Formats: sequence, structure tokens, C-alpha cells
Amino acid sequence: TWKGAPQISTSSGWSFKPRGRLQYDAGTVNAPGSIVDNGLGFQSEIRRARLGVQGDIPGGFGYKFEVDVADNEVVVTDAVLTYKDGAAKFTVGQHNNFQSFEELTSSLHISFLERAAFTDAFGFQRRVGVSGEYKSGDFLAQGGVFTSNFDDLSSDEANAIGLDGRVVFMPKTGDTQWHLGGSVHWRDMNDQSGAMRYRQRPAIHTTDTRFINTGNFTVTRETSYGLEAAVLSGPLHVAGEAHWLKATRPGGLANPTFFGGYVEAGYFFTKGDSRGYKSGKFDRVKPNAAVGDGGAGALQANVRFDYLDLSDAGIIGGTQNAYQASLIWTPADYVRFMLNYSHIEYDNAAVSAASGNNYTVDVFGARAQVDF
Amino acid sequence: TWKGAPQISTSSGWSFKPRGRLQYDAGTVNAPGSIVDNGLGFQSEIRRARLGVQGDIPGGFGYKFEVDVADNEVVVTDAVLTYKDGAAKFTVGQHNNFQSFEELTSSLHISFLERAAFTDAFGFQRRVGVSGEYKSGDFLAQGGVFTSNFDDLSSDEANAIGLDGRVVFMPKTGDTQWHLGGSVHWRDMNDQSGAMRYRQRPAIHTTDTRFINTGNFTVTRETSYGLEAAVLSGPLHVAGEAHWLKATRPGGLANPTFFGGYVEAGYFFTKGDSRGYKSGKFDRVKPNAAVGDGGAGALQANVRFDYLDLSDAGIIGGTQNAYQASLIWTPADYVRFMLNYSHIEYDNAAVSAASGNNYTVDVFGARAQVDF
Amino acid sequence: TWKGAPQISTSSGWSFKPRGRLQYDAGTVNAPGSIVDNGLGFQSEIRRARLGVQGDIPGGFGYKFEVDVADNEVVVTDAVLTYKDGAAKFTVGQHNNFQSFEELTSSLHISFLERAAFTDAFGFQRRVGVSGEYKSGDFLAQGGVFTSNFDDLSSDEANAIGLDGRVVFMPKTGDTQWHLGGSVHWRDMNDQSGAMRYRQRPAIHTTDTRFINTGNFTVTRETSYGLEAAVLSGPLHVAGEAHWLKATRPGGLANPTFFGGYVEAGYFFTKGDSRGYKSGKFDRVKPNAAVGDGGAGALQANVRFDYLDLSDAGIIGGTQNAYQASLIWTPADYVRFMLNYSHIEYDNAAVSAASGNNYTVDVFGARAQVDF
Repeated sequence: TWKGAPQISTSSGWSFKPRGRLQYDAGTVNAPGSIVDNGLGFQSEIRRARLGVQGDIPGGFGYKFEVDVADNEVVVTDAVLTYKDGAAKFTVGQHNNFQSFEELTSSLHISFLERAAFTDAFGFQRRVGVSGEYKSGDFLAQGGVFTSNFDDLSSDEANAIGLDGRVVFMPKTGDTQWHLGGSVHWRDMNDQSGAMRYRQRPAIHTTDTRFINTGNFTVTRETSYGLEAAVLSGPLHVAGEAHWLKATRPGGLANPTFFGGYVEAGYFFTKGDSRGYKSGKFDRVKPNAAVGDGGAGALQANVRFDYLDLSDAGIIGGTQNAYQASLIWTPADYVRFMLNYSHIEYDNAAVSAASGNNYTVDVFGARAQVDF
Repeated sequence: TWKGAPQISTSSGWSFKPRGRLQYDAGTVNAPGSIVDNGLGFQSEIRRARLGVQGDIPGGFGYKFEVDVADNEVVVTDAVLTYKDGAAKFTVGQHNNFQSFEELTSSLHISFLERAAFTDAFGFQRRVGVSGEYKSGDFLAQGGVFTSNFDDLSSDEANAIGLDGRVVFMPKTGDTQWHLGGSVHWRDMNDQSGAMRYRQRPAIHTTDTRFINTGNFTVTRETSYGLEAAVLSGPLHVAGEAHWLKATRPGGLANPTFFGGYVEAGYFFTKGDSRGYKSGKFDRVKPNAAVGDGGAGALQANVRFDYLDLSDAGIIGGTQNAYQASLIWTPADYVRFMLNYSHIEYDNAAVSAASGNNYTVDVFGARAQVDF
Repeated sequence: TWKGAPQISTSSGWSFKPRGRLQYDAGTVNAPGSIVDNGLGFQSEIRRARLGVQGDIPGGFGYKFEVDVADNEVVVTDAVLTYKDGAAKFTVGQHNNFQSFEELTSSLHISFLERAAFTDAFGFQRRVGVSGEYKSGDFLAQGGVFTSNFDDLSSDEANAIGLDGRVVFMPKTGDTQWHLGGSVHWRDMNDQSGAMRYRQRPAIHTTDTRFINTGNFTVTRETSYGLEAAVLSGPLHVAGEAHWLKATRPGGLANPTFFGGYVEAGYFFTKGDSRGYKSGKFDRVKPNAAVGDGGAGALQANVRFDYLDLSDAGIIGGTQNAYQASLIWTPADYVRFMLNYSHIEYDNAAVSAASGNNYTVDVFGARAQVDF
């Protein structure tokens, strides 16, 4: 069978498939002219450049291993050994810890160039751990214990530990897919207590400037809660999330709770096309009439409001109200082109302009994407 | 054919196979409480994360190329061009330089989480070079000339050069496989003479603390000798090695000779299982009744005494007497889980405790492993 | 089909192929004894160690993605998404920007260990951009707009931009292949104006010493022109190039124009062998009688004069007159061994010897190469 790349398998239960992706971004970030920063204006970059493999081993075992070299250094993404037995699945290794609907959705299938602001701001990332998943009918439960990210674990002092859980209810009524979910997270920094910061780029990754940023402060523990909801019906989808993160500080200091969330809606102009959905995540768009079949591919437009508040309990990281629109053309399976516009209003921004710390930033971005 | 991953071949002599491995470790290192070190206690890490390829080219040529990204940076392991003609085989590129039975045995097939202490302490590693191998019946001879490791060669001042040789006699009497071997090594540091140190972790790789460590001293030349012996009979195996390394110092300083060695024995509780052996190395365990076939996989227990003495001729690096036990479960081909316990007695340890430099350290470790 | 590695394809237009290469170099650089530099003398290194994939997607889309780990760090080489429609081809991603015949020819197929001196000295490298190519009969036109290299783009301040174009006329008269080409290049450094230097190693990559080197000076813009010519007829080939690069300096400083070029000729001693040529580049040598077929492979000798002048308008980088010879044995498809000798005369060299800055350097090098 072919899934972007060939999946080679045997009747006895072995399988093997190479996998990878390339995402190229170019864009402009227009901030108030009084902010002097060569990292603003026009930029381009390789957003993701991944190569990996996945396979199955008779008896229910499997593996997935992928690396990203987009910054000309190796970063391991998924690297897991799995075991499936009926409705239960166990995973050991580096993988996502069930943080949010959009974070768990592959970057190949999201609606905008970047995920909602809170997903990076709250430090969601893959971590090494052991997890279990149980899926029965319309119900999915996931939970695990995690240490740190590959990169952090190269230090022998990294012994932070966390617990993460998520439940999803995903019934189908007629052709309409519903998604309702919630997640909880707890993480103790242990010996790595210390400087943490919560921050986010302005809806594009080409710049390293963060207009919203708490700066460093000492955090000993993180507790967070998330709610997820979505509905997919034919060419239309609506989705939204809300997430609260409490950062516990040492020595009786007040503990800030930050909040982020978004609401988005999307529509396909091309007949018969719709967003994919599978097991609690958005999935691949497969054009009804691809360019290779004489069609025009799939064309989708999306709008989103993306909110993030990083100011609380004496920490002033700023607040973001972002209004976004995107246009996505999928000419063929596994190929995608995106245009993305964001108008972002910052209050108490971490970067000062001549007019103060309340201003707007406009961001235009484009992406070419291929995966296999 | 399938060897963890598909091996694609043609009747004209071409072949190609992807390859790789993942090893996840977690463990605790319990040293005297007076030693303050965040690198002790509980830790987890990705021990190895490798991806590579191997292939054959008509006319006797072949290649193997694998990289490890376990520390979120790329380290090249094997990267060779080979030529085979009958009993002779020639290799150019980075490969192991015939140092020790256990060092040459793949990390996928060793009996404990880590190899015997002397193998790292004496600096065994893959190096770039040219070697030849001749195998006839029960006899194997290997020899080569090597420069330095990939990593060191990125400096244009690296011009150390070494000669390495090994002979193995490996007769079979009935179902019993015997292994007797010896190796010699010589290496001139040339322009890279200078700070060398000999040291070793406490039987687990998650910590970077070395209780046994000579510290830096100037070495101009290394000469070493090794002896190897093993016997495999049904579910049982016994193996041992001894290795002497002389570090030559400049200007008439006394030259220390360090010594390390181990004796181990192992037994399979599951019927019909035994350790693999092939061409002078331990090989893969293939469970007689894998989980996918309705069996329980292969279960093996091992014990080992692992000695290392890094104190001689005025250099005081410490002495280690380690008593180790391991339990290995191989539920299916290419999947393995390990538990490992070590009780280590240090004399003249390089790290001082309140009670002095003679103390014991207890180490518990676990590993999940998959390869293809 | 098999092209070093298997190319797996479907009748519907999907294809996938792994790819890679290994090149091991050893050599000696003999400079005047009065130059004290541990980076001279004998050295060895991994010149290139690459692993990648390429594939086709129905509808005319395709991709290629390859990384090099030769210095034990990841460097992305080609990473592109392509679209073909008849005679036109469009490419987005990191790829070569049409600088020179020899630069565009794969390192697998060049006549000497290293390309002509001007190709590195003038900073030719792959860059991220968008390009188009049109090929009709004997005529090829290429052009694109490029930002920077993967590595440079990891800084968000990188916003240099360039335009590159090349035309090739490549008629065939009888069995004789002709190649005539020209290229133009323009690049504005934008915010990255600043320290640039033009320099080159002495015909081998194992050393990091550059005897010819302008040192750093501020450059705001580069403009360059190249001419290319070649003829291939049976066992014989002759090729040559000339390239002029003007570095524009700020504030009315004089703008130097550097010049480099080479003429080479090669001959195959083995019957029926010849150099490959395809679409404006040299291509693979496929031995007429490979070792695996009972033959001796292909044996080729080459000579070259390689000139580079990095002194102009007050910048004194030195001048090189290099006389080179190489012997290339291709025992089988995808395997190659090379010997290379260079006698290099430097005037106004950047490294001072006791006798001054005019002297000669002799370089001997060898390479083992395999690709797939």
C-alpha cells in the first residue's frame, strides 16, 4: 500500500514505512516602525524538515522514529515503541503528552501556519514517558507519566516529572462529526526548578521576536486544564479550545494563572472536500478531484480568533487578541500551499514601541508543504 | 526477505535495507548521601536512537551507514564501504577497531544495560580506517590501521594513528560453541598528544558522574592487550575478558598500566531459547515462542562480576568491584525489555564522600528496546 | 527499478527512492617547512556522508530531501518540492542557484577530489528559493530568486536576497556532445551586510588552512558572471569555465572584481567507457565491463589547470596557479576510488612563509566513494 511513501508489509504482521515532511515559510512581520529589530520585516525559513520511519512487529508491537533538521541541527520528534492489544495501546518513548486538540493534530493538517498562541506559550512539547490509551466506540481516554524532552534529557540533572490525562467523546450524528474533550496536566520541575518563561511568536515562526513574553521567573510546578470542542459537517468545520495554566512559585509568592484559547471556522469551496478527523485529532485533507486527476485540488478558507493572556498575579507578560484568516490549496494528496494573514492587538506587550506597549502587528505568511 | 525491516534485493546482486534502533533507559543511582550531585538519583534518557541503511553492490561491494541522535545531536556510528572476496573482507570508513568481544557485540545483544567498565574507560570507539578480515572455518583474523573518530576528525589537527589486530578461535563441539580470542592495539597521538583521561560511569549511562576517573594527564601513546573466552551451550552461557592498557607519558614519567575484566554467566528460563553467536560476536536472541505466536517470549537472567583498576604508577583513578544481575525479556524478535541491578564497591574513588573515598554505590536500571 | 537503491513506484505515478553517499579522504599537504601549522601534513576525514530520499506524487509533483552529517553535525543539502509540466519545471526549497557547470555537477561525478578553486572561493552554495527551468531540445534556461542557506536562515535577521540565471546550449554532432553556457548572479546582503571573505583550501578538504584568502571586509552586494564550455567525445572530454565576481563595498570604497577559471581534459583507458552528461551537467560513469561482470571497471586520467585571483582594488587575497592530475577507478556502478595530485603556485599568499608570500604547495589525496 502507498501512504505518501510505500508501506511494505508481510502477511505475518511485519510492516515498514519511511516518512517525512518539508515546510517552507516566507512572510513579513509589520510592527510599529519605532521598534528597531532586524528580526522583523521580510523573512524566510525552513519551518520543518523531517525524516523518519515507522513499522509493525508481529505480536502487536510497533515503532515510530522521526527527526527534524529544520534549524540545521537534529531534533528528535516522535521516537516510540508501542504495543497494541485490542482497544488498549501502550507507548514508551518521546511523544506528545495529550495537551490539546490542536497540539495533537499533526502540523501537516492544522488550519493556519502556526497553532493557537497558547500551545507554544504554555510549553507544550513532546516528552519521554510511558502512556496508555483506551478507545471504545465514541470514547477515548489517554494518560501517561512523562519526564522531559530529548533535548533536556541530555543533561543528567533533568528529573522533572509530570502526569497528563485526556478524555474525548467523539460521536457521529448522520454525517456530522462531534468532538468534545478535556485534559489535565501536572508537572513537578524537581531539581530543574528555576527560570521559566511563557511567550509566543506573532503567528509566524520566521521571526524570533516575541511581543508577548513573561520573562524569566522561578517556577516549581505547573498545573493546567484544557477544554476542546469541534464539529465537522461536510465542507464546514468549527473548533475551539480553552486552556488554563497555573505556574506555582516558591516561597509564598503569588501563583499566576495564564489563559489562552481560540475559536476557528473553515469552509471548502471545492465540491466534495472536507477536513479529515480520526481518533480525537484532525486528519489529512484528501482532495476529491486532485490536479493529477484533471481536477483543481481542494481549496479551503479559515478564520480564527486567537486569545492569549500572560498577565496575572504581578507577572506582566501581555495580552494578545489576534484575528486571522487563511487560504489553503491542496492540489494533490500530500502537497499543500497556504496563505495566512494575522492582525494582532497587543496590550502590555513585552517589547516597547515609542507609543508605549499597546499596539498592533500585522503578519503575512505563505507556506509550501510536501510530506510522505 | 525481512530482517526487522525489509531487505530488498535483486537476482543480479543488489540489495538495500533500512536499519535503526531505539533504547530508552530509566534508573536510579544511590551514592552516599554526603555526595551532593543533581546528576544522581532518578534519571531517564534515550540511550540510543539510530537510523541507517545498508546495501550490496554487484561485484562484492557493500556499504553500511548509520547515525545516532540520542543526545539531540548527530553522531555517526558505522559508515563503511566494504569489499568481499571469498574468505577475505576489506573495509574502509568508520568502524570498530577489534578491541574486545563485548565491545564488538552489538549493544542490541549485550547481557547488561552497559558493557563491562573497561570498554569505555579505555576509550574503545569506532574510528576511521582501513581494515581486513580473514575467516576460515573456526578461525578468524582481523587487523587494520585507524586514524580517529568522525567527531575528532572535524579538526584538521587530528592525525593520531593506530594499529589494531584480533584473532579468534571458535570451534563447535556438539551443540557447544567455544570462543577464544586475543587482541593487540597500538596508537600514537601525534599532534594530539595531551590531556587524556580514563573513567567510567557507574554501570548506567543516565548519569554523567564518574566515581572512577584518572583525571587528565598527558599521554603520547597507548598500547593495550585483551583476552576473550566464552562458551555457549543451550540455555547457558559463560563469558569473560581481561584487558591491559598502558598509557605512555612524555619526558621519562612513569607509565601506568590499567586493568579491567569481567566474568559473566547467563541462563534462559524459557524452553528452547539460547544466546546467538556469529563470527566472533554474540548475536540476536530469537525467541522460540514469541508473544505473537502465542508464547511468552524468551526470559533470561545474567550475573556478572566487573572489575576495573585505574590506579597505577602514581595515577590514582580508583578501583571498582561491581556485582551485577540482569533480567531480559524478549517478547518478540527485535523487541527487548531489561532490568539491571549493580552493587559497586569503589576504592580511592575520584568523588569524595564525607566518609572518604571508599564507599559503595547501588544502581537500578530499566530499558525498553526496539530495532529494525 | 534499481538506481543504486531501489526505486519503488506505482502505475498511478507515485515513486520513492532512498539515496545517500559516503566519501572518505586521506591526503598530505606539503607547504614550506617554515609554516608551523598542525593542520598541514597527513590528514584524513569523511568528506561527505549523506542520507536522503526522493519521490514523485501524481499530478507532476515531486520532492528531494538529503542531509549531510560529515562533520558530525547535520547540514541540509537538497530539500525541495518540485512541479513539472511538460518542458517546464518549478522548484521551491533549498537547491543550487545555477552558478557553474562544475558546481552543478554532483560531487559524485567531478574529475578531481575538489571542484575548481573559484567555486568555493566565490561562496557558491545551495540556498532557499523559488526557481523555474525550461528545457527544449538542445536549449536549457534556468532562473530563480533565492534568500539564504538553511544554516544562515536559522537567524531571523537573515534577509539577503538574490537573483540567478543560466542558459545552456548543448547540441550533439554525431557522437560528440557539446556544452556552451553562461550565468549571471546578483545578491543583496540587506541587513546582513558586513564581514565577507573569499578564500579557498589547497585542492583538498582535509585541511582548514587557506593559503589564498582575502580576509574579512564589508560587502553589501555581489554581482558575478560565468562562462562554461565542454566537449565529450568517446573516451575523451575537455571542459573549461571562467567566472568573474564583483564585490560591492559601502561608502565609495573601490569594488574589487575577482576572477577564477579552469581548463581540464580527461581520458578513459578502458574500452567503451566515457563520462556521462545530462541536461547541462556531467553525469555518472557506468563502467562498460564492471568487476562483477568479469571486467576491470573503468579507469580514467584527468589533468587540469586551475587559476584563481583574489587580489584587486586594494584587497590582496593572493593568486593561485594550480597544476593537477587525477586517476579515477570505477570498479562498479556507484563505487569509485580516486588519486589526486596538485602542484600549486601561490603569489601574495595569505599565509606567510620564512621566504615570503610566494611559494608552492604540493598536495596528494585519495578518496574511496560509494553512493546509492
